[in-house]
Amino acid sequence: MTHRILAVALPPLPEVQPGDDLPALIADAWREAMAADADMAPAQGDVLVVTQKVVSKAEGALVDLRTITPRPEAVAFAERWDRDARQVEVVLREAAAVVRMDRGVIITRTRHGFVCANGGVDASNVAPDTVTLLPEDPDRSARQIRGGLATLLDRPSEDVPAVVISDSFGRPWRWGITDIALGVAGFAPLDDQRGRPDTTGRTMRSTIVAVADEIASAAELASGKTSGRPVVLVRGVVLPAGAGTIHDDVVMPRENDLFP
Amino acid sequence: MTHRILAVALPPLPEVQPGDDLPALIADAWREAMAADADMAPAQGDVLVVTQKVVSKAEGALVDLRTITPRPEAVAFAERWDRDARQVEVVLREAAAVVRMDRGVIITRTRHGFVCANGGVDASNVAPDTVTLLPEDPDRSARQIRGGLATLLDRPSEDVPAVVISDSFGRPWRWGITDIALGVAGFAPLDDQRGRPDTTGRTMRSTIVAVADEIASAAELASGKTSGRPVVLVRGVVLPAGAGTIHDDVVMPRENDLFP
Repeated sequence: MTHRILAVALPPLPEVQPGDDLPALIADAWREAMAADADMAPAQGDVLVVTQKVVSKAEGALVDLRTITPRPEAVAFAERWDRDARQVEVVLREAAAVVRMDRGVIITRTRHGFVCANGGVDASNVAPDTVTLLPEDPDRSARQIRGGLATLLDRPSEDVPAVVISDSFGRPWRWGITDIALGVAGFAPLDDQRGRPDTTGRTMRSTIVAVADEIASAAELASGKTSGRPVVLVRGVVLPAGAGTIHDDVVMPRENDLFP
Repeated sequence: MTHRILAVALPPLPEVQPGDDLPALIADAWREAMAADADMAPAQGDVLVVTQKVVSKAEGALVDLRTITPRPEAVAFAERWDRDARQVEVVLREAAAVVRMDRGVIITRTRHGFVCANGGVDASNVAPDTVTLLPEDPDRSARQIRGGLATLLDRPSEDVPAVVISDSFGRPWRWGITDIALGVAGFAPLDDQRGRPDTTGRTMRSTIVAVADEIASAAELASGKTSGRPVVLVRGVVLPAGAGTIHDDVVMPRENDLFP
């Protein structure tokens, strides 16, 4: 273990449209980075973190708000809290369950099992009257991007980067959003250290590190929200061996959760 | 903005004892890193992330469990869930409120306002029959470490690193822990981007990024839990200007929270 992590935002991508070949756009940006700095060539253990927004755009997970007729509940909530009733309607349609709906905030459980503000429906960095939805299956999105890159990069298979699809979520009890992983490909998203000795030799009983989420947060620091750089190369992380998905490994089943 | 973040764990610290001069130990480790790699010399914008464990040890925030007589409630909970009743007792003593106490898990609100498992009381990486408590005022701890380093490093004041005190917290709805910031010194822990234009020129309405928490997560990737490297240098982050504390800026007041 090198104890050294590098997170570098790749050059900006062109505006992504539905149907675009996202792996090709990412590979182009990566080649541009390599042309400027040979150290950026793919290496074993690399992770590419791709923000949800460009994945949703490429997959066409967009809604034209001009086509949406909000239900009365959405109109009332929007009027009271100065929001767009059509967007509120989309949030409610996307929700498997409403966890909280108060003070202008709607927190839902999506059909993926994510609990987040507005169910991931987002109007930032998209055209007017348009919102993005979360990708239908972000783990599948990650696998598809990784598969596309494997072909495009023409590198040995051990140098095909892992992929994380990231998004910004709030959390209870603390102000501010942090980036977390919606989907992964190429590594196990949790590092289960239970049973390993700590520095005193005592066996750790409860340490399971959400490595994929920490990678997403590190990537956010390199990209920022307004730079048009939706892809970040993260290098140096000791990736937990094996495969896995956010859906199966990280999303907590309702019956295990102590919270609503 | 360089769009390039580096996180490097400093060499291991000696075992920290109550009363130790933690800034001096950190400065020694940093000098050792510099001796091996001149690029490690302090630079503007550097952040040192220090894990709670060594801060608590240096401050003597330790409890000898042999001195603890558990209350009946702690004994019953410990017997049912195979835990140490004395540790359960300490968790209850440290709690301002118990948020959940079920299935062997105790989630409390500490007097600092943190909501976390076991109220931050932790038996890992400490001597047998000993637990660490959270630092009394982690923002103050961060300021003290930063003040000590300012003297020790003998660098221009703009090169005195910012400091984050980190800890590993679980969260609702997702498995796994991520490192977050308990205290900060030298920058504002939130980057309030509300009012700034996004890439399409639309004004962002709700984006407040928890930069300090993301820095803590990035640092965890570089240190790991079992390496004896409790201090990580994080470089390249665009630190939000100004000052601030986790207590005042990040801990959400009860009346603003939609969760228990």
